[in-house]
Amino acid sequence: MKNVLLKIQYDGTLFSGWQKQPELRTVQGEIEKVLTKLCCQTIEINGASRTDAGVHAYGQAATFKGDYAIPVENIKKAANNLLPEDIYILSAEEVDDDFHARFSSKGKTYEYKILYTKEKDIFSRNYYYNICKELDIEAMKKACGYFIGSHDFRAFMSSGSNVTDTVREIYDLNISVKKKSAKKKEILIEVTGNGFLYNMVRIITGTLVEVGLKKIKPEEILNIIESKNRYMAGHIAPAGGLYLKEIYFSDLQKGENI
Amino acid sequence: MKNVLLKIQYDGTLFSGWQKQPELRTVQGEIEKVLTKLCCQTIEINGASRTDAGVHAYGQAATFKGDYAIPVENIKKAANNLLPEDIYILSAEEVDDDFHARFSSKGKTYEYKILYTKEKDIFSRNYYYNICKELDIEAMKKACGYFIGSHDFRAFMSSGSNVTDTVREIYDLNISVKKKSAKKKEILIEVTGNGFLYNMVRIITGTLVEVGLKKIKPEEILNIIESKNRYMAGHIAPAGGLYLKEIYFSDLQKGENI
Repeated sequence: MKNVLLKIQYDGTLFSGWQKQPELRTVQGEIEKVLTKLCCQTIEINGASRTDAGVHAYGQAATFKGDYAIPVENIKKAANNLLPEDIYILSAEEVDDDFHARFSSKGKTYEYKILYTKEKDIFSRNYYYNICKELDIEAMKKACGYFIGSHDFRAFMSSGSNVTDTVREIYDLNISVKKKSAKKKEILIEVTGNGFLYNMVRIITGTLVEVGLKKIKPEEILNIIESKNRYMAGHIAPAGGLYLKEIYFSDLQKGENI
Repeated sequence: MKNVLLKIQYDGTLFSGWQKQPELRTVQGEIEKVLTKLCCQTIEINGASRTDAGVHAYGQAATFKGDYAIPVENIKKAANNLLPEDIYILSAEEVDDDFHARFSSKGKTYEYKILYTKEKDIFSRNYYYNICKELDIEAMKKACGYFIGSHDFRAFMSSGSNVTDTVREIYDLNISVKKKSAKKKEILIEVTGNGFLYNMVRIITGTLVEVGLKKIKPEEILNIIESKNRYMAGHIAPAGGLYLKEIYFSDLQKGENI
Protein backbone atom coordinates (compact mmCIF):
# COMPACT_ATOMS: atom_id res chain seq x y z
CA MET A 1 0.00 0.00 0.00
CA LYS A 2 1.52 3.32 -1.06
CA ASN A 3 0.71 6.70 0.46
CA VAL A 4 1.37 9.61 -1.90
CA LEU A 5 1.46 13.35 -1.28
CA LEU A 6 0.51 15.59 -4.19
CA LYS A 7 1.25 19.28 -4.48
CA ILE A 8 -1.38 20.84 -6.72
CA GLN A 9 -1.98 24.11 -8.52
CA TYR A 10 -5.40 25.10 -9.85
CA ASP A 11 -7.27 28.02 -11.30
CA GLY A 12 -10.51 27.95 -9.30
CA THR A 13 -12.54 30.07 -11.75
CA LEU A 14 -14.45 27.22 -13.37
CA PHE A 15 -14.69 24.93 -10.33
CA SER A 16 -17.42 24.59 -7.72
CA GLY A 17 -14.60 24.48 -5.18
CA TRP A 18 -12.26 21.71 -4.05
CA GLN A 19 -14.65 19.27 -2.46
CA LYS A 20 -16.30 16.56 -4.54
CA GLN A 21 -20.02 17.09 -5.08
CA PRO A 22 -22.30 15.07 -7.32
CA GLU A 23 -23.02 16.66 -10.72
CA LEU A 24 -20.60 19.55 -10.10
CA ARG A 25 -17.14 20.19 -11.53
CA THR A 26 -14.77 20.17 -8.54
CA VAL A 27 -11.00 19.96 -8.25
CA GLN A 28 -11.11 16.87 -6.06
CA GLY A 29 -13.57 15.22 -8.44
CA GLU A 30 -11.41 15.87 -11.52
CA ILE A 31 -8.21 14.64 -9.86
CA GLU A 32 -9.88 11.49 -8.50
CA LYS A 33 -11.24 10.65 -11.96
CA VAL A 34 -7.72 10.84 -13.42
CA LEU A 35 -6.00 8.92 -10.57
CA THR A 36 -8.70 6.24 -10.65
CA LYS A 37 -7.89 5.75 -14.33
CA LEU A 38 -4.12 5.70 -13.82
CA CYS A 39 -4.26 3.38 -10.81
CA CYS A 40 -6.97 1.08 -12.23
CA GLN A 41 -8.82 1.30 -8.90
CA THR A 42 -11.07 3.76 -7.13
CA ILE A 43 -8.88 6.48 -5.62
CA GLU A 44 -10.03 8.96 -3.02
CA ILE A 45 -7.84 11.94 -2.18
CA ASN A 46 -7.73 13.99 1.01
CA GLY A 47 -7.02 17.66 0.49
CA ALA A 48 -5.38 19.86 3.14
CA SER A 49 -7.88 22.64 2.55
CA ARG A 50 -11.38 22.67 1.10
CA THR A 51 -11.20 25.81 -0.97
CA ASP A 52 -14.46 27.45 -2.06
CA ALA A 53 -15.76 27.99 -5.59
CA GLY A 54 -13.57 30.51 -7.42
CA VAL A 55 -10.65 30.26 -4.97
CA HIS A 56 -7.28 29.38 -6.56
CA ALA A 57 -4.31 27.36 -5.37
CA TYR A 58 -0.60 27.70 -5.96
CA GLY A 59 0.18 24.93 -3.53
CA GLN A 60 -2.71 22.75 -2.37
CA ALA A 61 -1.64 19.45 -0.81
CA ALA A 62 -3.51 16.15 -0.95
CA THR A 63 -2.73 12.54 -0.05
CA PHE A 64 -4.10 9.28 -1.39
CA LYS A 65 -3.49 5.64 -0.65
CA GLY A 66 -3.62 2.60 -2.87
CA ASP A 67 -1.97 -0.55 -4.02
CA TYR A 68 -1.34 0.08 -7.70
CA ALA A 69 1.23 -0.60 -10.41
CA ILE A 70 2.17 2.89 -11.65
CA PRO A 71 5.49 4.03 -10.15
CA VAL A 72 5.19 7.16 -7.98
CA GLU A 73 7.78 8.99 -10.09
CA ASN A 74 5.52 8.66 -13.13
CA ILE A 75 2.37 10.00 -11.51
CA LYS A 76 3.09 13.71 -12.06
CA LYS A 77 3.60 13.43 -15.80
CA ALA A 78 0.88 10.84 -16.41
CA ALA A 79 -1.72 12.75 -14.37
CA ASN A 80 -0.88 16.12 -15.96
CA ASN A 81 -1.40 14.57 -19.39
CA LEU A 82 -4.94 13.60 -18.44
CA LEU A 83 -5.95 16.50 -16.20
CA PRO A 84 -7.92 19.48 -17.55
CA GLU A 85 -5.87 22.57 -18.32
CA ASP A 86 -6.86 24.40 -15.14
CA ILE A 87 -5.28 21.83 -12.79
CA TYR A 88 -1.58 21.03 -12.62
CA ILE A 89 0.24 18.58 -10.35
CA LEU A 90 3.52 20.17 -9.21
CA SER A 91 4.86 17.07 -7.48
CA ALA A 92 3.97 13.57 -6.29
CA GLU A 93 6.05 11.87 -3.62
CA GLU A 94 5.70 8.82 -1.44
CA VAL A 95 5.21 9.57 2.27
CA ASP A 96 4.91 7.57 5.48
CA ASP A 97 1.80 5.52 5.92
CA ASP A 98 0.40 7.70 8.72
CA PHE A 99 0.91 10.99 6.85
CA HIS A 100 -2.34 12.80 5.96
CA ALA A 101 -2.49 16.07 3.99
CA ARG A 102 -5.09 17.53 6.33
CA PHE A 103 -4.27 16.12 9.76
CA SER A 104 -0.47 16.32 9.34
CA SER A 105 -0.60 19.97 8.26
CA LYS A 106 0.97 22.44 10.74
CA GLY A 107 0.06 25.62 8.98
CA LYS A 108 -1.00 27.33 5.77
CA THR A 109 -0.23 30.47 3.86
CA TYR A 110 -2.90 32.23 1.83
CA GLU A 111 -2.37 35.16 -0.49
CA TYR A 112 -5.10 37.65 -1.32
CA LYS A 113 -4.67 39.87 -4.40
CA ILE A 114 -6.27 43.27 -4.73
CA LEU A 115 -5.98 45.41 -7.85
CA TYR A 116 -6.32 49.13 -7.38
CA THR A 117 -7.39 50.56 -10.71
CA LYS A 118 -9.32 53.68 -11.66
CA GLU A 119 -11.03 52.03 -14.62
CA LYS A 120 -12.45 48.53 -14.53
CA ASP A 121 -9.92 45.90 -15.55
CA ILE A 122 -11.79 43.04 -17.21
CA PHE A 123 -8.73 40.78 -17.46
CA SER A 124 -8.33 40.57 -13.69
CA ARG A 125 -11.99 39.94 -12.84
CA ASN A 126 -11.46 36.32 -11.78
CA TYR A 127 -8.01 36.79 -10.23
CA TYR A 128 -8.13 40.02 -8.20
CA TYR A 129 -10.47 42.03 -6.04
CA ASN A 130 -10.82 45.19 -8.14
CA ILE A 131 -10.98 48.34 -6.04
CA CYS A 132 -11.18 51.77 -7.63
CA LYS A 133 -10.84 53.88 -4.47
CA GLU A 134 -7.44 54.78 -3.03
CA LEU A 135 -6.61 52.64 0.02
CA ASP A 136 -4.66 53.89 3.04
CA ILE A 137 -1.98 51.21 3.00
CA GLU A 138 -0.27 52.48 6.17
CA ALA A 139 -3.50 52.13 8.14
CA MET A 140 -4.00 48.62 6.71
CA LYS A 141 -0.46 47.66 7.73
CA LYS A 142 -1.10 48.97 11.22
CA ALA A 143 -4.31 46.95 11.43
CA CYS A 144 -2.44 43.76 10.46
CA GLY A 145 -0.56 43.79 13.75
CA TYR A 146 -3.76 43.28 15.76
CA PHE A 147 -4.54 39.99 14.02
CA ILE A 148 -1.20 38.35 14.85
CA GLY A 149 -1.31 35.80 17.63
CA SER A 150 -3.75 33.32 19.05
CA HIS A 151 -7.34 34.62 19.15
CA ASP A 152 -10.90 33.43 19.02
CA PHE A 153 -11.65 34.46 15.45
CA ARG A 154 -15.40 33.74 15.60
CA ALA A 155 -16.12 37.27 14.31
CA PHE A 156 -14.22 36.35 11.15
CA MET A 157 -16.12 33.17 10.32
CA SER A 158 -19.06 32.88 7.93
CA SER A 159 -22.12 31.02 9.13
CA GLY A 160 -22.59 27.54 7.70
CA SER A 161 -19.61 26.01 9.46
CA ASN A 162 -20.06 23.52 12.25
CA VAL A 163 -16.65 24.22 13.81
CA THR A 164 -16.95 24.80 17.56
CA ASP A 165 -13.32 25.57 18.50
CA THR A 166 -12.83 28.93 16.81
CA VAL A 167 -9.41 29.76 18.27
CA ARG A 168 -6.70 30.02 15.63
CA GLU A 169 -3.18 31.40 15.64
CA ILE A 170 -2.01 33.82 12.98
CA TYR A 171 1.79 33.77 12.70
CA ASP A 172 2.21 36.40 10.09
CA LEU A 173 0.06 38.92 8.17
CA ASN A 174 1.74 41.21 5.65
CA ILE A 175 0.72 43.72 3.05
CA SER A 176 2.91 44.63 0.10
CA VAL A 177 2.26 46.95 -2.82
CA LYS A 178 3.57 46.53 -6.37
CA LYS A 179 3.09 49.19 -8.99
CA LYS A 180 1.82 47.57 -12.19
CA SER A 181 1.45 50.66 -14.36
CA ALA A 182 0.78 54.39 -14.01
CA LYS A 183 -2.85 53.72 -13.04
CA LYS A 184 -2.63 50.26 -11.46
CA LYS A 185 -1.30 48.95 -8.19
CA GLU A 186 -1.32 45.39 -6.93
CA ILE A 187 -1.93 45.08 -3.20
CA LEU A 188 -0.93 41.67 -1.85
CA ILE A 189 -2.04 40.38 1.53
CA GLU A 190 -0.19 37.32 2.78
CA VAL A 191 -1.35 35.49 5.87
CA THR A 192 0.12 32.46 7.60
CA GLY A 193 -1.51 30.61 10.47
CA ASN A 194 -2.00 27.20 12.01
CA GLY A 195 -5.47 27.03 10.48
CA PHE A 196 -8.31 29.20 9.24
CA LEU A 197 -12.04 29.25 9.88
CA TYR A 198 -14.65 29.21 7.10
CA ASN A 199 -14.06 32.32 4.91
CA MET A 200 -11.68 33.74 7.54
CA VAL A 201 -9.07 35.06 5.09
CA ARG A 202 -11.72 36.69 2.91
CA ILE A 203 -13.36 38.37 5.93
CA ILE A 204 -9.97 39.54 7.26
CA THR A 205 -9.31 40.98 3.78
CA GLY A 206 -12.71 42.70 3.64
CA THR A 207 -12.04 44.17 7.08
CA LEU A 208 -8.57 45.38 6.04
CA VAL A 209 -10.10 46.97 2.93
CA GLU A 210 -12.56 48.85 5.16
CA VAL A 211 -9.60 50.03 7.24
CA GLY A 212 -7.98 51.18 3.98
CA LEU A 213 -11.19 53.05 3.12
CA LYS A 214 -11.17 54.62 6.62
CA LYS A 215 -14.47 53.01 7.60
CA ILE A 216 -12.77 51.09 10.40
CA LYS A 217 -9.84 52.37 12.48
CA PRO A 218 -6.82 50.03 12.84
CA GLU A 219 -7.12 49.99 16.64
CA GLU A 220 -10.76 48.83 16.39
CA ILE A 221 -9.59 45.41 15.17
CA LEU A 222 -8.99 44.19 18.70
CA ASN A 223 -12.56 45.12 19.70
CA ILE A 224 -13.91 43.36 16.64
CA ILE A 225 -11.98 40.18 17.50
CA GLU A 226 -13.14 40.39 21.13
CA SER A 227 -16.78 40.94 20.11
CA LYS A 228 -16.83 37.44 18.53
CA ASN A 229 -19.61 38.92 16.42
CA ARG A 230 -19.53 38.45 12.63
CA TYR A 231 -21.48 41.70 12.13
CA MET A 232 -18.70 43.75 13.72
CA ALA A 233 -16.13 42.63 11.12
CA GLY A 234 -15.97 43.87 7.53
CA HIS A 235 -17.48 42.45 4.35
CA ILE A 236 -16.33 39.22 2.75
CA ALA A 237 -13.87 39.86 -0.09
CA PRO A 238 -14.61 38.05 -3.40
CA ALA A 239 -13.40 34.44 -3.86
CA GLY A 240 -11.43 35.15 -7.06
CA GLY A 241 -8.72 37.16 -5.26
CA LEU A 242 -7.82 34.32 -2.88
CA TYR A 243 -4.94 31.87 -3.43
CA LEU A 244 -4.00 28.93 -1.22
CA LYS A 245 -0.26 29.43 -1.41
CA GLU A 246 1.35 26.78 0.72
CA ILE A 247 0.69 24.01 3.23
CA TYR A 248 3.37 23.42 5.87
CA PHE A 249 4.05 20.03 7.38
CA SER A 250 6.73 21.01 9.87
CA ASP A 251 6.30 23.20 12.92
CA LEU A 252 6.16 26.94 12.38
CA GLN A 253 7.01 29.52 14.99
CA LYS A 254 5.49 32.92 15.29
CA GLY A 255 7.71 35.41 13.54
CA GLU A 256 9.69 32.74 11.75
CA ASN A 257 10.85 33.85 8.37
CA ILE A 258 8.77 31.72 6.01
CA MET B 1 -28.52 61.06 -36.98
CA LYS B 2 -25.56 60.59 -34.65
CA ASN B 3 -22.36 58.73 -35.48
CA VAL B 4 -20.54 57.41 -32.43
CA LEU B 5 -17.05 55.93 -32.03
CA LEU B 6 -16.57 53.40 -29.25
CA LYS B 7 -13.24 52.30 -27.81
CA ILE B 8 -13.69 48.80 -26.42
CA GLN B 9 -11.78 46.35 -24.25
CA TYR B 10 -12.61 42.66 -24.10
CA ASP B 11 -11.31 39.39 -22.82
CA GLY B 12 -11.72 37.12 -25.84
CA THR B 13 -11.53 33.83 -23.90
CA LEU B 14 -15.25 33.08 -23.87
CA PHE B 15 -16.17 34.64 -27.23
CA SER B 16 -16.40 33.07 -30.69
CA GLY B 17 -14.55 36.14 -31.92
CA TRP B 18 -15.68 39.67 -32.70
CA GLN B 19 -18.00 39.11 -35.63
CA LYS B 20 -21.68 38.43 -35.07
CA GLN B 21 -22.73 34.86 -35.84
CA PRO B 22 -26.11 33.28 -35.21
CA GLU B 23 -26.28 31.14 -32.05
CA LEU B 24 -22.73 32.05 -30.98
CA ARG B 25 -21.53 34.40 -28.25
CA THR B 26 -19.59 37.14 -30.03
CA VAL B 27 -18.34 40.55 -28.91
CA GLN B 28 -20.21 42.39 -31.67
CA GLY B 29 -23.38 40.45 -30.85
CA GLU B 30 -23.24 41.27 -27.13
CA ILE B 31 -22.56 44.98 -27.71
CA GLU B 32 -25.31 45.29 -30.33
CA LYS B 33 -27.82 43.69 -27.94
CA VAL B 34 -26.99 46.28 -25.27
CA LEU B 35 -26.96 49.29 -27.62
CA THR B 36 -30.23 48.17 -29.24
CA LYS B 37 -31.78 48.21 -25.77
CA LEU B 38 -30.29 51.60 -24.81
CA CYS B 39 -31.20 53.25 -28.10
CA CYS B 40 -34.65 51.63 -28.44
CA GLN B 41 -33.85 50.74 -32.05
CA THR B 42 -31.82 48.10 -33.89
CA ILE B 43 -28.17 49.11 -33.74
CA GLU B 44 -25.43 47.63 -35.90
CA ILE B 45 -21.83 48.36 -35.10
CA ASN B 46 -18.81 48.30 -37.41
CA GLY B 47 -15.60 47.13 -35.78
CA ALA B 48 -12.15 48.16 -36.98
CA SER B 49 -10.87 44.62 -36.71
CA ARG B 50 -12.61 41.23 -36.74
CA THR B 51 -10.63 39.47 -34.05
CA ASP B 52 -10.78 35.67 -33.93
CA ALA B 53 -12.10 33.46 -31.14
CA GLY B 54 -9.88 33.77 -28.05
CA VAL B 55 -8.15 36.98 -29.19
CA HIS B 56 -8.34 39.89 -26.73
CA ALA B 57 -8.59 43.65 -27.16
CA TYR B 58 -7.23 46.54 -25.13
CA GLY B 59 -8.42 49.06 -27.68
CA GLN B 60 -10.83 47.82 -30.34
CA ALA B 61 -12.71 50.62 -32.14
CA ALA B 62 -16.25 50.47 -33.52
CA THR B 63 -18.72 52.98 -34.92
CA PHE B 64 -22.51 52.98 -35.03
CA LYS B 65 -25.15 55.35 -36.35
CA GLY B 66 -28.63 56.07 -35.15
CA ASP B 67 -31.21 58.65 -34.27
CA TYR B 68 -31.83 58.00 -30.60
CA ALA B 69 -32.55 59.85 -27.38
CA ILE B 70 -29.71 58.78 -25.05
CA PRO B 71 -27.00 61.49 -24.85
CA VAL B 72 -23.62 60.32 -26.15
CA GLU B 73 -21.95 61.21 -22.83
CA ASN B 74 -24.20 58.69 -21.05
CA ILE B 75 -23.49 55.76 -23.37
CA LYS B 76 -20.28 54.58 -21.69
CA LYS B 77 -21.79 54.26 -18.23
CA ALA B 78 -25.17 52.93 -19.36
CA ALA B 79 -23.65 50.34 -21.69
CA ASN B 80 -21.09 49.15 -19.12
CA ASN B 81 -23.89 48.58 -16.64
CA LEU B 82 -25.59 46.20 -19.07
CA LEU B 83 -22.59 44.55 -20.74
CA PRO B 84 -21.22 41.20 -19.55
CA GLU B 85 -18.16 41.38 -17.34
CA ASP B 86 -15.71 40.44 -20.12
CA ILE B 87 -16.49 43.54 -22.23
CA TYR B 88 -15.83 47.12 -21.17
CA ILE B 89 -16.44 50.35 -23.10
CA LEU B 90 -13.51 52.71 -22.50
CA SER B 91 -15.06 55.68 -24.29
CA ALA B 92 -17.90 56.78 -26.54
CA GLU B 93 -17.62 60.00 -28.55
CA GLU B 94 -19.52 61.59 -31.40
CA VAL B 95 -17.63 61.73 -34.69
CA ASP B 96 -18.23 63.15 -38.18
CA ASP B 97 -20.90 61.51 -40.24
CA ASP B 98 -18.45 60.00 -42.74
CA PHE B 99 -16.17 58.49 -40.09
CA HIS B 100 -16.08 54.66 -40.10
CA ALA B 101 -14.08 52.57 -37.59
CA ARG B 102 -12.83 50.24 -40.29
CA PHE B 103 -12.45 52.42 -43.39
CA SER B 104 -11.12 55.48 -41.52
CA SER B 105 -8.44 53.46 -39.72
CA LYS B 106 -4.85 54.26 -40.75
CA GLY B 107 -3.10 51.63 -38.71
CA LYS B 108 -3.24 49.17 -35.85
CA THR B 109 -1.00 47.95 -33.09
CA TYR B 110 -1.18 44.37 -31.86
CA GLU B 111 0.63 42.95 -28.89
CA TYR B 112 1.51 39.29 -28.57
CA LYS B 113 2.38 37.90 -25.13
CA ILE B 114 4.62 34.90 -24.59
CA LEU B 115 5.37 33.44 -21.19
CA TYR B 116 8.62 31.59 -20.83
CA THR B 117 8.22 29.22 -17.91
CA LYS B 118 9.89 25.94 -17.03
CA GLU B 119 6.76 24.51 -15.45
CA LYS B 120 3.30 24.89 -16.94
CA ASP B 121 1.53 28.02 -15.68
CA ILE B 122 -2.20 27.30 -15.60
CA PHE B 123 -3.16 30.88 -14.77
CA SER B 124 -1.80 32.23 -18.03
CA ARG B 125 -3.28 29.58 -20.32
CA ASN B 126 -5.81 31.92 -21.97
CA TYR B 127 -3.62 35.03 -21.92
CA TYR B 128 -0.13 33.96 -22.99
CA TYR B 129 1.61 31.55 -25.32
CA ASN B 130 3.40 29.31 -22.80
CA ILE B 131 6.84 28.25 -23.97
CA CYS B 132 9.12 26.14 -21.78
CA LYS B 133 12.24 26.24 -23.96
CA GLU B 134 14.72 29.10 -23.74
CA LEU B 135 14.34 31.50 -26.69
CA ASP B 136 17.24 33.31 -28.34
CA ILE B 137 15.86 36.83 -27.95
CA GLU B 138 18.73 38.50 -29.81
CA ALA B 139 18.07 36.33 -32.88
CA MET B 140 14.35 37.17 -32.65
CA LYS B 141 15.12 40.89 -32.46
CA LYS B 142 17.37 40.59 -35.48
CA ALA B 143 14.59 38.78 -37.38
CA CYS B 144 12.15 41.61 -36.60
CA GLY B 145 14.07 44.00 -38.82
CA TYR B 146 13.30 41.97 -41.95
CA PHE B 147 9.56 42.37 -41.49
CA ILE B 148 9.62 46.17 -41.37
CA GLY B 149 8.44 47.91 -44.51
CA SER B 150 6.00 47.27 -47.31
CA HIS B 151 5.91 43.62 -48.42
CA ASP B 152 3.61 41.07 -49.95
CA PHE B 153 2.87 39.09 -46.78
CA ARG B 154 1.01 36.25 -48.51
CA ALA B 155 3.31 33.72 -46.78
CA PHE B 156 1.97 35.01 -43.46
CA MET B 157 -1.73 34.64 -44.23
CA SER B 158 -3.91 31.66 -43.27
CA SER B 159 -6.10 30.16 -45.96
CA GLY B 160 -9.77 30.99 -45.70
CA SER B 161 -9.39 34.66 -46.52
CA ASN B 162 -10.62 36.08 -49.81
CA VAL B 163 -8.25 39.07 -49.72
CA THR B 164 -6.41 39.46 -53.04
CA ASP B 165 -4.15 42.43 -52.33
CA THR B 166 -1.74 40.93 -49.81
CA VAL B 167 0.70 43.85 -49.62
CA ARG B 168 0.86 45.42 -46.17
CA GLU B 169 3.25 47.82 -44.51
CA ILE B 170 4.72 47.09 -41.09
CA TYR B 171 5.88 50.29 -39.43
CA ASP B 172 7.30 48.83 -36.29
CA LEU B 173 7.99 45.40 -34.78
CA ASN B 174 9.58 45.21 -31.34
CA ILE B 175 10.37 42.57 -28.79
CA SER B 176 10.80 43.32 -25.12
CA VAL B 177 11.45 41.03 -22.17
CA LYS B 178 10.18 41.50 -18.62
CA LYS B 179 11.31 39.25 -15.81
CA LYS B 180 8.27 38.13 -13.83
CA SER B 181 9.96 35.87 -11.28
CA ALA B 182 13.06 33.71 -10.95
CA LYS B 183 11.62 31.13 -13.34
CA LYS B 184 9.33 33.25 -15.51
CA LYS B 185 9.89 35.78 -18.25
CA GLU B 186 7.30 37.68 -20.24
CA ILE B 187 8.26 38.19 -23.89
CA LEU B 188 6.18 40.91 -25.54
CA ILE B 189 5.99 41.36 -29.29
CA GLU B 190 4.48 44.62 -30.45
CA VAL B 191 3.69 45.20 -34.10
CA THR B 192 2.23 48.25 -35.82
CA GLY B 193 1.19 48.38 -39.45
CA ASN B 194 -1.31 49.86 -41.86
CA GLY B 195 -3.26 46.61 -41.82
CA PHE B 196 -2.85 42.89 -41.27
CA LEU B 197 -3.86 39.81 -43.24
CA TYR B 198 -5.85 36.92 -41.75
CA ASN B 199 -3.80 35.48 -38.83
CA MET B 200 -0.75 37.51 -39.92
CA VAL B 201 0.34 38.56 -36.42
CA ARG B 202 0.00 35.03 -35.07
CA ILE B 203 2.02 33.59 -37.98
CA ILE B 204 4.70 36.28 -37.61
CA THR B 205 4.84 35.37 -33.90
CA GLY B 206 5.09 31.63 -34.64
CA THR B 207 7.90 32.36 -37.10
CA LEU B 208 9.73 34.54 -34.57
CA VAL B 209 9.38 31.75 -31.97
CA GLU B 210 11.00 29.33 -34.44
CA VAL B 211 13.82 31.85 -34.88
CA GLY B 212 14.13 31.92 -31.09
CA LEU B 213 14.30 28.11 -31.06
CA LYS B 214 16.98 28.26 -33.82
CA LYS B 215 14.83 26.38 -36.33
CA ILE B 216 14.83 29.40 -38.66
CA LYS B 217 17.74 31.84 -39.10
CA PRO B 218 16.91 35.56 -38.84
CA GLU B 219 18.22 36.25 -42.35
CA GLU B 220 15.88 33.60 -43.79
CA ILE B 221 12.88 35.86 -43.09
CA LEU B 222 13.37 37.76 -46.33
CA ASN B 223 13.32 34.52 -48.35
CA ILE B 224 10.17 33.43 -46.55
CA ILE B 225 8.44 36.72 -47.37
CA GLU B 226 9.60 36.50 -51.00
CA SER B 227 8.42 32.88 -51.32
CA LYS B 228 4.81 34.05 -50.78
CA ASN B 229 4.32 30.48 -49.60
CA ARG B 230 2.50 29.86 -46.31
CA TYR B 231 4.41 26.60 -45.79
CA MET B 232 7.75 28.43 -45.68
CA ALA B 233 6.67 30.53 -42.64
CA GLY B 234 6.44 29.23 -39.07
CA HIS B 235 3.48 27.83 -37.14
CA ILE B 236 0.50 29.89 -36.06
CA ALA B 237 0.82 31.03 -32.44
CA PRO B 238 -2.24 30.44 -30.21
CA ALA B 239 -5.08 32.98 -30.22
CA GLY B 240 -5.01 33.61 -26.44
CA GLY B 241 -1.66 35.45 -26.54
CA LEU B 242 -2.90 38.08 -29.01
CA TYR B 243 -4.21 41.52 -28.02
CA LEU B 244 -5.56 44.20 -30.36
CA LYS B 245 -3.91 47.14 -28.66
CA GLU B 246 -4.81 50.25 -30.59
CA ILE B 247 -6.45 51.53 -33.76
CA TYR B 248 -5.03 54.73 -35.28
CA PHE B 249 -7.13 57.20 -37.20
CA SER B 250 -4.41 59.65 -38.14
CA ASP B 251 -1.50 59.00 -40.51
CA LEU B 252 1.42 57.06 -39.11
CA GLN B 253 4.93 57.28 -40.45
CA LYS B 254 7.44 54.48 -40.40
CA GLY B 255 9.68 54.92 -37.39
CA GLU B 256 7.34 57.39 -35.74
CA ASN B 257 7.36 57.11 -32.00
CA ILE B 258 3.94 55.62 -31.31
